[in-house]
Amino acid sequence: MPFDRLIERIEKMNCPVVAGLDPTFAELPEHLKDGADDSFEGAAEALYQFSSQLIDALHDIVPAVKPQCAYFEMYGWQGVRALKRTMDYAKSKGMFVITDGKRNDIGSTMDAYAAAYLGESGALGPAFDADALTVNGYLGVDGIRPLMDAIIKRDRGIFVLCKTSNKSAGDLQDRLIDAKPIYQIMGEFCEEWGRETVGRYGYSGVGAVVGATYPEQLAALRAALPHTFFLVPGYGAQGGSAKQVALAFDRDGRGAIVNSSRAIMYAYKKGNTDPRAFAEAARSEAVRMRDEIHEALGS
Amino acid sequence: MPFDRLIERIEKMNCPVVAGLDPTFAELPEHLKDGADDSFEGAAEALYQFSSQLIDALHDIVPAVKPQCAYFEMYGWQGVRALKRTMDYAKSKGMFVITDGKRNDIGSTMDAYAAAYLGESGALGPAFDADALTVNGYLGVDGIRPLMDAIIKRDRGIFVLCKTSNKSAGDLQDRLIDAKPIYQIMGEFCEEWGRETVGRYGYSGVGAVVGATYPEQLAALRAALPHTFFLVPGYGAQGGSAKQVALAFDRDGRGAIVNSSRAIMYAYKKGNTDPRAFAEAARSEAVRMRDEIHEALGS
Repeated sequence: MPFDRLIERIEKMNCPVVAGLDPTFAELPEHLKDGADDSFEGAAEALYQFSSQLIDALHDIVPAVKPQCAYFEMYGWQGVRALKRTMDYAKSKGMFVITDGKRNDIGSTMDAYAAAYLGESGALGPAFDADALTVNGYLGVDGIRPLMDAIIKRDRGIFVLCKTSNKSAGDLQDRLIDAKPIYQIMGEFCEEWGRETVGRYGYSGVGAVVGATYPEQLAALRAALPHTFFLVPGYGAQGGSAKQVALAFDRDGRGAIVNSSRAIMYAYKKGNTDPRAFAEAARSEAVRMRDEIHEALGS
Repeated sequence: MPFDRLIERIEKMNCPVVAGLDPTFAELPEHLKDGADDSFEGAAEALYQFSSQLIDALHDIVPAVKPQCAYFEMYGWQGVRALKRTMDYAKSKGMFVITDGKRNDIGSTMDAYAAAYLGESGALGPAFDADALTVNGYLGVDGIRPLMDAIIKRDRGIFVLCKTSNKSAGDLQDRLIDAKPIYQIMGEFCEEWGRETVGRYGYSGVGAVVGATYPEQLAALRAALPHTFFLVPGYGAQGGSAKQVALAFDRDGRGAIVNSSRAIMYAYKKGNTDPRAFAEAARSEAVRMRDEIHEALGS
């Protein structure tokens, strides 16, 4: 079942970390930008070079990558091509690819997103072929059902936004319905939607995004949603500590993967690192983060 | 201000209709599929041919098009290139382009989506350059604020999902918070978020998606949200009648644009129309729909 593959990879590497790939051209190391700044094509190629070199440096210690669609779409279709190349490269290195698109729509259109990211586009086969996709559940089960086929038949997973890591997450998500906050209701939807897809470690193919920046809610959701695997953003740059992210895990040390984007990608900007050594710096930061989480988990 | 351009175009053509472009390869007229079914490139080119011929047939009577990202993303980056070409072609014909991507994320990532669809990607200029973008407000104002710059400085608009047209819309959207349904709270957010961007017809740059399939809620939202322009899906194929969509308009007959996708795109499938005449059939359906809405509005 869907997240079994991810869980086994996490355990094999003993590393519940996913490296977020949110590259912007302006922040790339200078040597990758040289001569690439005059076209979408050039910028997109630089994005791919950056991302693929990070994958080279990380793939044997970090089980998964999470490319964020927005940063690639910013460079037009050329950027989207770089996204696809990045995803293919990560998979060729054995990494689990979580495409962070937060897609959402009603039935027939969600069918198209399901085909695009997790399924197949008719006889043409898969288009992007991610292992998992982030989605937004505001439209209810109509927006989720079209994904179930890929979850079950193609062994793919989804992560539904529950409690996001940003400051204004609570504008809507913390509001109470019959004394229950919306993020919890969304979490309960995840349990319900995933019911038929529970795998050998007790987790279904319908995961949830739960930010590290709200530790109380994170702990409450972990307790309330025993079959829902968590993707946890907000560690590091956004302020979430290892102690906070530890709350996302179950007693067996399973049930979550923690994302870090900027802190890993741009590790070279800290200290006096040569920008040409950005990938090694990223690897060191991933190791540091892994060890810090282990310590917090007491494992 | 953002929707002034759209409103003026609607009035010039006397047609509050937006043609949704949701093309799937399988449903295209046969002559466009010939020899195009063996690659993403070929399928994407067929999508573009279909879309651009629809634009040729519609641009002098329908003020706007709404390409739906999902259907293009289904054909990979090649499909996304066809999306960009379709958007450019529609704009070259003077149409207002609403890109239906329902994008959503937290601050820094939403900056990237804002740059991609409504703004500019640094010195490279605009990537997709839509006139408006649909967005999902589940993450609160952090997910909206990054779009305000493009709304104000580049005269662009957004439509936030409030009450969607699908069956399960109510799973979350109808739940009550202090006796007020979530779709109304989201609508009130739209009023608040758009406050500084009200244009000469009283509507702000922050519009709302409100489905025609829930007429009571549509009427209530129209009354409650005087500065929020509505994008109304659900007419036709989904069951919304002209009488229902009429509830989306204000007393001056303004304040909304009604979407039709399948009924216009695939009009040729009704009756004995030659599939080669799909564009003329689409035009006839758009005229029929326009007249039906006029009748319902008593205008």
